[in-house]
Amino acid sequence: MTKANQSNIFERLELPLKTFPNGDQQDLTVFRLRSPNPGPIVYIQASVHGAEVQGNAVIWHLMNFFRDAPFKGSLTFVPMANPHALLNKTGTYTQGRFNSLSGNNWNRNYTDITKSEHFTIEEFCQRFKEDSPEKIKKHFKEFLYQSLKAEQNQLKKRGPQEDRKLNLILQELAASADIILDLHTGPVATRYLYAGEFEKDKVKDLNFPHTLIIPNEFAGAMDEACFIPWLSLKDALNEAGLSFEVPIESYTVELGSEEVINDDLAKRDAVRILGLLQKRGLLKEEDLSTEKKAFLDEYASSESQKACLLKDYHSYYAARGGLVEYLKAPGESYNEGEVLCRTLSFSDLKNLDQLDQCYSDTHALEDGIIINHNPSAVVHEGQPLYQVMSEIFEL
Amino acid sequence: MTKANQSNIFERLELPLKTFPNGDQQDLTVFRLRSPNPGPIVYIQASVHGAEVQGNAVIWHLMNFFRDAPFKGSLTFVPMANPHALLNKTGTYTQGRFNSLSGNNWNRNYTDITKSEHFTIEEFCQRFKEDSPEKIKKHFKEFLYQSLKAEQNQLKKRGPQEDRKLNLILQELAASADIILDLHTGPVATRYLYAGEFEKDKVKDLNFPHTLIIPNEFAGAMDEACFIPWLSLKDALNEAGLSFEVPIESYTVELGSEEVINDDLAKRDAVRILGLLQKRGLLKEEDLSTEKKAFLDEYASSESQKACLLKDYHSYYAARGGLVEYLKAPGESYNEGEVLCRTLSFSDLKNLDQLDQCYSDTHALEDGIIINHNPSAVVHEGQPLYQVMSEIFEL
Amino acid sequence: MTKANQSNIFERLELPLKTFPNGDQQDLTVFRLRSPNPGPIVYIQASVHGAEVQGNAVIWHLMNFFRDAPFKGSLTFVPMANPHALLNKTGTYTQGRFNSLSGNNWNRNYTDITKSEHFTIEEFCQRFKEDSPEKIKKHFKEFLYQSLKAEQNQLKKRGPQEDRKLNLILQELAASADIILDLHTGPVATRYLYAGEFEKDKVKDLNFPHTLIIPNEFAGAMDEACFIPWLSLKDALNEAGLSFEVPIESYTVELGSEEVINDDLAKRDAVRILGLLQKRGLLKEEDLSTEKKAFLDEYASSESQKACLLKDYHSYYAARGGLVEYLKAPGESYNEGEVLCRTLSFSDLKNLDQLDQCYSDTHALEDGIIINHNPSAVVHEGQPLYQVMSEIFEL
Amino acid sequence: MTKANQSNIFERLELPLKTFPNGDQQDLTVFRLRSPNPGPIVYIQASVHGAEVQGNAVIWHLMNFFRDAPFKGSLTFVPMANPHALLNKTGTYTQGRFNSLSGNNWNRNYTDITKSEHFTIEEFCQRFKEDSPEKIKKHFKEFLYQSLKAEQNQLKKRGPQEDRKLNLILQELAASADIILDLHTGPVATRYLYAGEFEKDKVKDLNFPHTLIIPNEFAGAMDEACFIPWLSLKDALNEAGLSFEVPIESYTVELGSEEVINDDLAKRDAVRILGLLQKRGLLKEEDLSTEKKAFLDEYASSESQKACLLKDYHSYYAARGGLVEYLKAPGESYNEGEVLCRTLSFSDLKNLDQLDQCYSDTHALEDGIIINHNPSAVVHEGQPLYQVMSEIFEL
Repeated sequence: MTKANQSNIFERLELPLKTFPNGDQQDLTVFRLRSPNPGPIVYIQASVHGAEVQGNAVIWHLMNFFRDAPFKGSLTFVPMANPHALLNKTGTYTQGRFNSLSGNNWNRNYTDITKSEHFTIEEFCQRFKEDSPEKIKKHFKEFLYQSLKAEQNQLKKRGPQEDRKLNLILQELAASADIILDLHTGPVATRYLYAGEFEKDKVKDLNFPHTLIIPNEFAGAMDEACFIPWLSLKDALNEAGLSFEVPIESYTVELGSEEVINDDLAKRDAVRILGLLQKRGLLKEEDLSTEKKAFLDEYASSESQKACLLKDYHSYYAARGGLVEYLKAPGESYNEGEVLCRTLSFSDLKNLDQLDQCYSDTHALEDGIIINHNPSAVVHEGQPLYQVMSEIFEL
Repeated sequence: MTKANQSNIFERLELPLKTFPNGDQQDLTVFRLRSPNPGPIVYIQASVHGAEVQGNAVIWHLMNFFRDAPFKGSLTFVPMANPHALLNKTGTYTQGRFNSLSGNNWNRNYTDITKSEHFTIEEFCQRFKEDSPEKIKKHFKEFLYQSLKAEQNQLKKRGPQEDRKLNLILQELAASADIILDLHTGPVATRYLYAGEFEKDKVKDLNFPHTLIIPNEFAGAMDEACFIPWLSLKDALNEAGLSFEVPIESYTVELGSEEVINDDLAKRDAVRILGLLQKRGLLKEEDLSTEKKAFLDEYASSESQKACLLKDYHSYYAARGGLVEYLKAPGESYNEGEVLCRTLSFSDLKNLDQLDQCYSDTHALEDGIIINHNPSAVVHEGQPLYQVMSEIFEL
Repeated sequence: MTKANQSNIFERLELPLKTFPNGDQQDLTVFRLRSPNPGPIVYIQASVHGAEVQGNAVIWHLMNFFRDAPFKGSLTFVPMANPHALLNKTGTYTQGRFNSLSGNNWNRNYTDITKSEHFTIEEFCQRFKEDSPEKIKKHFKEFLYQSLKAEQNQLKKRGPQEDRKLNLILQELAASADIILDLHTGPVATRYLYAGEFEKDKVKDLNFPHTLIIPNEFAGAMDEACFIPWLSLKDALNEAGLSFEVPIESYTVELGSEEVINDDLAKRDAVRILGLLQKRGLLKEEDLSTEKKAFLDEYASSESQKACLLKDYHSYYAARGGLVEYLKAPGESYNEGEVLCRTLSFSDLKNLDQLDQCYSDTHALEDGIIINHNPSAVVHEGQPLYQVMSEIFEL
Repeated sequence: MTKANQSNIFERLELPLKTFPNGDQQDLTVFRLRSPNPGPIVYIQASVHGAEVQGNAVIWHLMNFFRDAPFKGSLTFVPMANPHALLNKTGTYTQGRFNSLSGNNWNRNYTDITKSEHFTIEEFCQRFKEDSPEKIKKHFKEFLYQSLKAEQNQLKKRGPQEDRKLNLILQELAASADIILDLHTGPVATRYLYAGEFEKDKVKDLNFPHTLIIPNEFAGAMDEACFIPWLSLKDALNEAGLSFEVPIESYTVELGSEEVINDDLAKRDAVRILGLLQKRGLLKEEDLSTEKKAFLDEYASSESQKACLLKDYHSYYAARGGLVEYLKAPGESYNEGEVLCRTLSFSDLKNLDQLDQCYSDTHALEDGIIINHNPSAVVHEGQPLYQVMSEIFEL
């Protein structure tokens, strides 16, 4: 057993994010664990949406695991990756999905760096196309980092728009990573993740019960912001007649429900991620202590892995305003025609014979699995009820 | 078996509440069920706080029960008693505890009518003190109603402040009632209720698992606004040498958690209320159909009834900001010194040896029962964690 | 003088928008004034953003003008076009720019119908390309309407997402219009408008002091949603070798500051619009009463018309959090290097000698005109300060 | 001329207020300027309500004045006295009047320390009643401070409720002061202040255009929290047969409109306060430099001082929802019957003949002066329009 852990380096970085109206500074705290032995570069952030906090407990368990376990490569952890969103309460709940001033959804506001003038991909290909894929990968990470830096510098010119500043810092932190995990949660939700079409075979190693396969396109999210430049590189090299496969993975990982910390489930979540890292060579089971092995065994998951394409991931919206009882739980399967929820409204009640009509049912339009539902029983017409998977296949 | 139900009268009333900035009118909908046979006058409202919706499902079951069951007296139902609050979302959740413009908590904004110039209690006593208690009661209900009407008229002078207008309408609707139930919920909560010191023997008939005994004082809530005038009458008559007992009951009833509709629990909640009404003579078991009796049996509760004084009802506030895992569930008992919740924060983490200190525990200061907890894991220092009962006794 | 006005038809339509959680229905109110004589079809809406209300007072003056003035064609008015947004207060102010649940900006959420499967433009061109431009225009309006209807029907399938439902209804109402005016306001703002590149010569007839020329592209706004299909038609016909010019105009018009109704300025705003309608043949000055002519004269504007391209319309964001004094007013010109605002913060004040450094200045990066500024003195780093025009030219 | 300023001491204190969910600490920053020569102890805070910021600019000018001016006594400045409230935006505006979770208005949540078990006034009087008024004053300040400290310690037991913690810290900071100024603003407002009945003669020295005389009672505000204990002392001593006058002054000062920093007006505001301090012996005009004297002259105010009792300070609420044009400006006088504002609504418009009825007027019920109005044109029925003074007298 290598004693790599004895010389692992732990760093804490504080990156200035913003100053508040009273002048207080808010920093982003980054933790980095580096092995002296080369290996995968891993980037994990949590809580870009303020109410989605379970990932922070998972990061704690990952740090705790590597406290005294040998590994190769490096791990960058950014818990509470959006402190502004985390602090932002209106009433009891955390309103951290959008910036309430700009309306920007913090996970739809990343930069497609391939559209930037700084992303001179033709020039890059011209310069490095003769290199080995491994070298191209290394150069490209540097190129990506420089492009993002240039974009950040430009942002400063007329003052740094607050959402873009944060989003670009996070992109920069992930620019050198081989594996990027953006830990979110749904509203009231099961565990599920988003994987790009191009990485749909790799994602199996995360062993998640539900996977949404998204197109290889940019729609503003972190996972896409991280993989799109590599797809762009692949296209450019392929066009130049060179074969090249995307060497990185980038996933949005939804760890159950918002506003919840659950330590027991955090262990299971951590073990899923450790399983991926094991398969990517960051850690080896044989190097682990008996205790660590037991931890991995105890919290291992063995569910089947269901998946569907994003086009088959549907939302149900309320056809009528009212008070909703959600009859199906996240993760639950249902058949076409089943009642998914009931909506109570007294608005048409003129006599007691009409009492049964106070409740209206929402029926499933096809077979599927509940992925999440609205956490509120109070629903306006047109507000979301459920998000569901249909046309499901095994990964 | 009387067939009283055949001639029960069902009414729906629409009371104008306000006009919106676009001119649309918002009404309060009131349902009334009246037996031709005299009996208790019951007033039940739900959702004065917009997110607290379970009471509406309970009202549905009560109406459904009396659809074809004989009874004496009358029942007034005001579901969704605060439509403005119910509509008011900020983000996913319903922000219906305060008026966000005035800051008024809708259940701390009722009028203490005994402080009004229209509440001429000495004059009232002078006039009716020779009457029988039953007659005094009847006259006093009329007097109460007239006082509230006068207060409402005065309110109109410079435009009707929106919160007071609603609160006074609800008080007026309840002015003639013998039994007043104001159906709320806690945040994430067990079932519990508030009863005045003066009615602590009567409240047992509601058969609730947890009861808070509050002083016979006005603190702005509906239950108090309803019972305070009667206590004032009792005092005035007693001072005049006449014996008089408060002939009405008024409770705030907390039906579990906010943002939730649960039909199965609504049946249990309804049966608790039906049990009280039975004991007060509104319905008789022998008059009921086999089906109705079976319903009462199936959903009956048999828990013990724990109570404490309001002074022994405590709040725990966060001693430190962080992400909280609530380890105790509403309704759960605990002993002094037990860990109630754990708070995660990375703020002091400088090296991995300090990892365990990322979590800090909140310990119980005495034996108690969890009544409710904050529905959010994201907590600023000084925000509520739990509300608990201590110094508990059986009712 | 034609007495067209005697037979003008005034209609009020109520279109169901949504039901609230309490079951109340919210309608969209549409007013339509139709002359028996054919002429331009005009569509004017106001307050899609809830706080931006001045347009409603302008609509009142337009309706008042045509109460007894002869005209040709028709006018559709949709004041308070987004009642949900108008009702939505958090605190004192109207939070009507985004749907706080979905985060959708109501003026960035319209549908690009040219991307819809229902928008079969090739088929349309094939069928009608031999027709006269006038006939093509007529057919295309019908085609547009049908495409939008089909899109709306599809939306209903899983319940109508609330924002898209509203946005599609507004698009449908405007589908047959020759002139579309979407009345908004800025935060604290001067009067300015957005015009497409293709209509930059026509926009002069609106006689506005400031104009932003936007690309002929779709970015989610109403003006674009209205003109993009016509640009698509033009392209398709041109590709088929036919000449065709876009026969409609569509502008977003910013009438000063949000949260303000000013009747005197509303008259000036109305007269600007009446000037356009006059030039498009909807009304003729010689047909007007002396009183109407006097009204047009009294409230006419004679400022010069400054314009810039959207790429030269810049935002300044706060480089530092603090309390901001805005030194330049909307509409004011400034030179490069001038101080635009000062920001107060005590955060670095350690001794009184540093007192002057509590204030930091924001300097203009080039010559320009202030278009609007943040209405709040309380500014976080990265939040907007000003929006300004640069590289200004006369229209 | 004493050169007291050369040895004035300037201190900056950071008092820990709270930790955020991410663990960041938020401090209260306090600035203190002390002369070696004894004199009045002055306490000035600003922005307890987050949107009410003008006082911070005034504090800057006061500090700037005393940078090199001789004085006696001490000045404690707490700008941005409620950082939590200052940071709290929902949309563009600062929602800092209430804690959105607890609903507590931060200026209605101070502690009436005379109700505390720690405020043993009888014991205090017994012990010190033989002393001179000056000595009693000194002892009482210490007693007040200790009572507030004891209250704060008690608060910690179950975690420090966030609003009370802040409010008690501010009370503690002011406990030793002879002059307490709590700088607020209205919504859209003129300059006015609140003075207790007991200090109505002294308040003239602040030279404010509008003064509201409030009862010598506790209603939760800072000014009251500061003067109530002294009134309680006076009562206790008087009851014990000793004459004693309240030796402190405490005012809530409203410096115009919220969300605004205006440096020119800040100078005038500062000069008003300097005028009071001059009359109380903190500074002497003859000690000042020519420059300072010129500053005092240039920004001096010479308006008349109008006042009314709190009972004659009225609110107008909207009798109808709609869009409001405020026709009277803050500070403006009006006569009974005048139109104060007009409200636009299209809700009843069925034909064009009814167009005039879209506007409804709000008339003045008596002669008065506008003190403030709602900053939003979008008004629900029952929301505030104006606050006005009536039954006005000269101070």
